[in-house]
Amino acid sequence: MRNVLFLSLLYCSFAFASPPAHPLSSSELLASSKPDDWRPVLPENTLYMELPSGRVILELNPKFAPESVANVVALAKENYWDGLAIIRVQDNYVVQWADPNDEKPELKKKLKNASEHVNAELDVPLNASVPFDVLSERDVYAREVGYSSGFAVGRDLKAKKMWPLHCYGAVGIGRATAPDSGNGTELYAVIGNAPRHLDRNVTVIGRVIQGMDLLSSLPRGHGDLGFYEKTEQRTTIRSLHLASRVDPKERTVLEVLRTDTPIFKQWVLARKNRTEDWFHYQAGHIDVCNIPIPIRETKR
Amino acid sequence: MRNVLFLSLLYCSFAFASPPAHPLSSSELLASSKPDDWRPVLPENTLYMELPSGRVILELNPKFAPESVANVVALAKENYWDGLAIIRVQDNYVVQWADPNDEKPELKKKLKNASEHVNAELDVPLNASVPFDVLSERDVYAREVGYSSGFAVGRDLKAKKMWPLHCYGAVGIGRATAPDSGNGTELYAVIGNAPRHLDRNVTVIGRVIQGMDLLSSLPRGHGDLGFYEKTEQRTTIRSLHLASRVDPKERTVLEVLRTDTPIFKQWVLARKNRTEDWFHYQAGHIDVCNIPIPIRETKR
Repeated sequence: MRNVLFLSLLYCSFAFASPPAHPLSSSELLASSKPDDWRPVLPENTLYMELPSGRVILELNPKFAPESVANVVALAKENYWDGLAIIRVQDNYVVQWADPNDEKPELKKKLKNASEHVNAELDVPLNASVPFDVLSERDVYAREVGYSSGFAVGRDLKAKKMWPLHCYGAVGIGRATAPDSGNGTELYAVIGNAPRHLDRNVTVIGRVIQGMDLLSSLPRGHGDLGFYEKTEQRTTIRSLHLASRVDPKERTVLEVLRTDTPIFKQWVLARKNRTEDWFHYQAGHIDVCNIPIPIRETKR
Repeated sequence: MRNVLFLSLLYCSFAFASPPAHPLSSSELLASSKPDDWRPVLPENTLYMELPSGRVILELNPKFAPESVANVVALAKENYWDGLAIIRVQDNYVVQWADPNDEKPELKKKLKNASEHVNAELDVPLNASVPFDVLSERDVYAREVGYSSGFAVGRDLKAKKMWPLHCYGAVGIGRATAPDSGNGTELYAVIGNAPRHLDRNVTVIGRVIQGMDLLSSLPRGHGDLGFYEKTEQRTTIRSLHLASRVDPKERTVLEVLRTDTPIFKQWVLARKNRTEDWFHYQAGHIDVCNIPIPIRETKR
């Protein structure tokens, strides 16, 4: 018999007919969701990075980094990344893409409408217009953690701040030593154990919501910090465009399970105490970065 | 200027001449280590998994799973995995290897001296002969976490138990639903955010100490649970042998920074409050699975 290590599927769409006797497992729970439990991913907040291997989809989080997101959108609109490359893959850490000629002034790609300088946006003041749905769990790094419209965030009521977390798939702005030395031309995505020591050190602009496997399975770079040492090791980015500027027929239509709903609370419970027969020991706790935020593809 | 996202190198071997004025960074600290701060990785506790892409090295942890480790060693001695394959790569979770014909009794590989049945070894009683060096940090899942001879472990003084943690690189025994349904023929390694909900649910036999990138960069499987759907997607295992049975000239000689030393305590401090100029916000906390346990290759 095939021995498996259990993980219920994140993208599941089956229905079940009669209510089960035991508490719902995570897959049963998603199957029981109502249309209103999901929110659409807006094309104007969505980037498609087209790689030779397929499409990577990023959802932007402008409430936490408005200036940075606006510059990233401006860069996408002027086709900044088209033909540039993934230049760094550091194991258990990040994939990073940028202009390979960034350090050669005569060769590097010129900006058109996008700004050369963007302020660091490491956290935001508490603000009634930015939701925070608390996760009542311990956290190693932050006083409180939770979700804000589908993004994992931390909160400090004393400092009156919120900030996005570096969970798997988080996308941030590569920078040099000065906090404001990144303008969004160089981006990274987390491909390893949540590097939470980066929280509040780097501007996070969103997260990858589909196609993480295309980034995480890239060959690792063996130069310092995982940079590729040879040009031919890089992966060329065919294009990186806003979904709203892509022909509607070519779009991937996604929905995210709303994190301010009763069903999401049940989802958290189902993930912290797994009711599937495979689990014999219930953790009773869960790390904010170990709760996948369900995404589903819907028909156009 | 190349914008980078900073991570000090784990495998570093440079020396520095004069003591720096600021607290030592993690790389400076390793450079200041003494020979006695390191322990050898014993060939009799080391497995080499030879893939077409290179060598993956696993260190076994027999104190936490003696019966399971003994059976894995017996399997390696009878060349059980030679010619078998990596059959599952689930993104942000695990890589798993086994006999692809496991479910076909007429085709599956026969065991010679290894046992068909092994008891589950999910935790061990507190025992003076099994060290525990506490990490004075919060943890989401366990009452206490720390290290035991270079392996991340949890402890519950009330339940009088210790157990290995599912950090990045942890290697465990795939199983079906019953806790003792795995005999070591099917093994997995963690390639994503620490799936700590597996702690105490699966027998952990050790961890990958070199070559993680060869596993983590494999193409993901797109069948249920990340199993490959086509035979040709699998990676064949050339051999999986004990280092002690490999010609000494062909061995990789590794040392691990001892986790019961003052320098390891300093290492933890250097990782939780990063002194490198790149960091502007000090986390002040660190997750047990975010502290790399330094490994270095030495001359034969």
